[in-house]
Amino acid sequence: MTKEKTAISPTRAEDYSEWYQQVVKAAEMAEHSPVRGCMVIKPWGYALWENIQRELDDLFKATGVRNAYFPLFIPLSFLEKEAEHVEGFAKECAVVTHHRLEKGPDGGLVPAGKLAEPLVVRPTSETIIGDAFSKWVSSYRDLPLLINQWANVVRWEMRTRIFLRTSEFLWQEGHTAHATSEEAVERTKLMLDIYAELAENYLAMPVIKGRKSAAERFPGAVDTLCIEALMQDRKALQAGTSHFLGQNFAKASQIRFQSAQETEEYAWTTSWGASTRLIGGLVMTHGDDDGMVLPPKVASAHVVLLPIFRKEAEKGQVMEYTHKLAKELRGSTYNGRPVRVEIDERQTGGARNWDWIRKGIPVRAEIGPRDIAEDSVFMGRRDNSPKEKKSVKREAFVRGLGQTLDQIQDALFQKALAYRKEITCNIDAKEDFYEFFTPKNADLPEIHGGLAMSHWCGEAACEAGIKEDLTVTIRCIPAENEIIEGRCICCGKESRERVAFSKAY
Amino acid sequence: MTKEKTAISPTRAEDYSEWYQQVVKAAEMAEHSPVRGCMVIKPWGYALWENIQRELDDLFKATGVRNAYFPLFIPLSFLEKEAEHVEGFAKECAVVTHHRLEKGPDGGLVPAGKLAEPLVVRPTSETIIGDAFSKWVSSYRDLPLLINQWANVVRWEMRTRIFLRTSEFLWQEGHTAHATSEEAVERTKLMLDIYAELAENYLAMPVIKGRKSAAERFPGAVDTLCIEALMQDRKALQAGTSHFLGQNFAKASQIRFQSAQETEEYAWTTSWGASTRLIGGLVMTHGDDDGMVLPPKVASAHVVLLPIFRKEAEKGQVMEYTHKLAKELRGSTYNGRPVRVEIDERQTGGARNWDWIRKGIPVRAEIGPRDIAEDSVFMGRRDNSPKEKKSVKREAFVRGLGQTLDQIQDALFQKALAYRKEITCNIDAKEDFYEFFTPKNADLPEIHGGLAMSHWCGEAACEAGIKEDLTVTIRCIPAENEIIEGRCICCGKESRERVAFSKAY
Repeated sequence: MTKEKTAISPTRAEDYSEWYQQVVKAAEMAEHSPVRGCMVIKPWGYALWENIQRELDDLFKATGVRNAYFPLFIPLSFLEKEAEHVEGFAKECAVVTHHRLEKGPDGGLVPAGKLAEPLVVRPTSETIIGDAFSKWVSSYRDLPLLINQWANVVRWEMRTRIFLRTSEFLWQEGHTAHATSEEAVERTKLMLDIYAELAENYLAMPVIKGRKSAAERFPGAVDTLCIEALMQDRKALQAGTSHFLGQNFAKASQIRFQSAQETEEYAWTTSWGASTRLIGGLVMTHGDDDGMVLPPKVASAHVVLLPIFRKEAEKGQVMEYTHKLAKELRGSTYNGRPVRVEIDERQTGGARNWDWIRKGIPVRAEIGPRDIAEDSVFMGRRDNSPKEKKSVKREAFVRGLGQTLDQIQDALFQKALAYRKEITCNIDAKEDFYEFFTPKNADLPEIHGGLAMSHWCGEAACEAGIKEDLTVTIRCIPAENEIIEGRCICCGKESRERVAFSKAY
Repeated sequence: MTKEKTAISPTRAEDYSEWYQQVVKAAEMAEHSPVRGCMVIKPWGYALWENIQRELDDLFKATGVRNAYFPLFIPLSFLEKEAEHVEGFAKECAVVTHHRLEKGPDGGLVPAGKLAEPLVVRPTSETIIGDAFSKWVSSYRDLPLLINQWANVVRWEMRTRIFLRTSEFLWQEGHTAHATSEEAVERTKLMLDIYAELAENYLAMPVIKGRKSAAERFPGAVDTLCIEALMQDRKALQAGTSHFLGQNFAKASQIRFQSAQETEEYAWTTSWGASTRLIGGLVMTHGDDDGMVLPPKVASAHVVLLPIFRKEAEKGQVMEYTHKLAKELRGSTYNGRPVRVEIDERQTGGARNWDWIRKGIPVRAEIGPRDIAEDSVFMGRRDNSPKEKKSVKREAFVRGLGQTLDQIQDALFQKALAYRKEITCNIDAKEDFYEFFTPKNADLPEIHGGLAMSHWCGEAACEAGIKEDLTVTIRCIPAENEIIEGRCICCGKESRERVAFSKAY
């Protein structure tokens, strides 16, 4: 059996981890920078992020959230205000200690102007935003306060992986303050629903909504809700989190208000975030052995026009036709946004076509003199085989583009959903559970496991034991869980619901 | 004579500098943070920035520019690659020296995990982006490379002023590489034209386009082009700069390419930026003694609806009418964007009205039971006197809103232009020049000067002498200068053109 040639080497089956790096590289989405753990997001990857931002931002604003911006630096004393919080972030943070450079003894520049108090580059902003909230809130009439920030954050991760775990990443962090616990809990759930909507309806990425066990909670939170997606190597990826912070941060930052009954109360706060990590999730959800596959609703571009001319004499006519078509397409909309069109004039034949397949653009349209004679384009779809192309009349192509993109969007979601179902199973016996998560083939260590829905008694010791033995964690306690009697997969004690176990990023 | 009461105290005439702070505060645009020199941009100010971003981003993209993102941190060795550049930024930069916090001897956290090489928080990104460009460019076919980044930057300014000069600020920085010097110069001018278009057509802020003298150039640039606006205290504000960098940074970062003639060449680069400083410029261009005045095209919101009900029984009807009107307005567009509508339900009478005047919203519409009976709103415009309001039929209000906003936009520009003309004059005698820039009244030190168009021989010594004597600088050598014989305002030597002198922010 001869192996079919793929545009990405190695394939997913050969070396998943390296395949991931190669897809990110071949699609020109991002690259490593000379700064340890920091990435450069290239235009094709950044356009994807801009589209994700736009959709998420609209979803936020529709619920009354407003954007604002807070300082990059957090005084050390602020971080220390919440004990669990500082514990969670102190081990990996960038610390600014000086505010000047001057000539050192050997002539090179050295840090100078030592700061009285070191500043931490924000790993997250609960404490600095909490300080602002404490000034903005004085009466129940000032509540709820619904704020979001689009920003860069820094966590000095020891082992980094492009998009998935980088020292600096881009994200949004929402922070809200409420008069009652109920209202804050409601907001925590609402924002999780928005993340799930983004993931499923825009990223075509099926997710499980649920809440974290105590061990996996955000440092300082009372409750952490999350969406978890399943990658093609059967590991889970946490794709968004929404935290109910109780009054912990309100007490740390003194966010107090006078209630309608004229009593002095601490506010109830929430925070919620999603990051450029989502792009890594997209690669691992939809990418194939030919490269990236972009879901149309957030695709960096929807369609690329590939003009073909052999002689210089043909060029004028072909380019005129191409630009006219591009203009027509850009004047139309898909999912409420203008259609995003690329034109690639390079005459590199098949290589050019493959570049766009690797980049994952949903639709390719070749335009040569013969196509023009028939007022047609020669169209290929990223969700079909690379060689499957067909001639479509220009008018039908333009008119049908929205439908084509919808079909691709839906096909990607259905495929990902089917895959998740395939690798998810209820497991009730400890032996089966350990078997499930143990590699079968030393050459293909990653082809095992998946999502095990198993009973858990709620004890941290059982959770820790499984993590220790198998590096498997509880991804979440699903929100839409059926109450069903069973026995803990670890200790055999009684349990009333299954939780989602898997390996994870 | 009794003084008319104003919403902002002090007035511009009483204390311009304090008036500025009070307008920013009263309009809830931004506030000082507990981190030295860093500001918190509040929702009303941030919405303004988002609108500026959107317009500028569209203008950039229409010229082929694509967005990307580069690391926040710059290794010290990178900054040192261009001698003038490091000289320009070393004195005021935030330096990261550690990547962890741990318990110190007295129990508090102290920096730990010292970095082998200190990292500088980017004050600007020529060197780190140059490094990426050196990998992205290998042939003339890769050029031009047209990249922009929206980001935060840090310059450890000793004297800060909200929006105008802060340690951290938000901006965009464009970076391009070209095969020829001519093309790079062309791009430098094109981006300046875009800044001028943003300033004049969107911000309603008249600007003078020109180039900086050598003393005022960006560190490392061959030529710096700029737009300069005139504030109401007669000082100039640099509102955007576009730098032709020659091959300086290409040599520092090794951005090389093979030409069509197969020779190895250094690229020619440009960089250009505009920042949240523009918001400070807007305050000082349009603000008055009642607060902020927002130009409609970038206004945080276009219109606020102010429902009025005395009894609870009236509330239902009034709110229904208000929300219906809001929906109708939001479904319409102004200048190609959906109309931005606020609703303020608070029943605080006149205080509520004044809040929106201070915030500078272009149009206010009161809606009470009597207005509803007549299917009308009671409308006020920010560019009219606060008490000048009139009843307008709802349908005419909705239909005419675009025209109303256009009128306000135009009125603001014309007013600012007239003011600039009023304070600009040709000065040819040194004595007059010194007189012009010397305060006449010790109580009102800022009411003097303006923009002096005077001859300059081109010598740095003359420029430096004037700066020393009067703190007056050459803002720019205007791009559309008439060639006209004259004598240097300082030394009397021959000169062929006038340059723009003034005090500046």
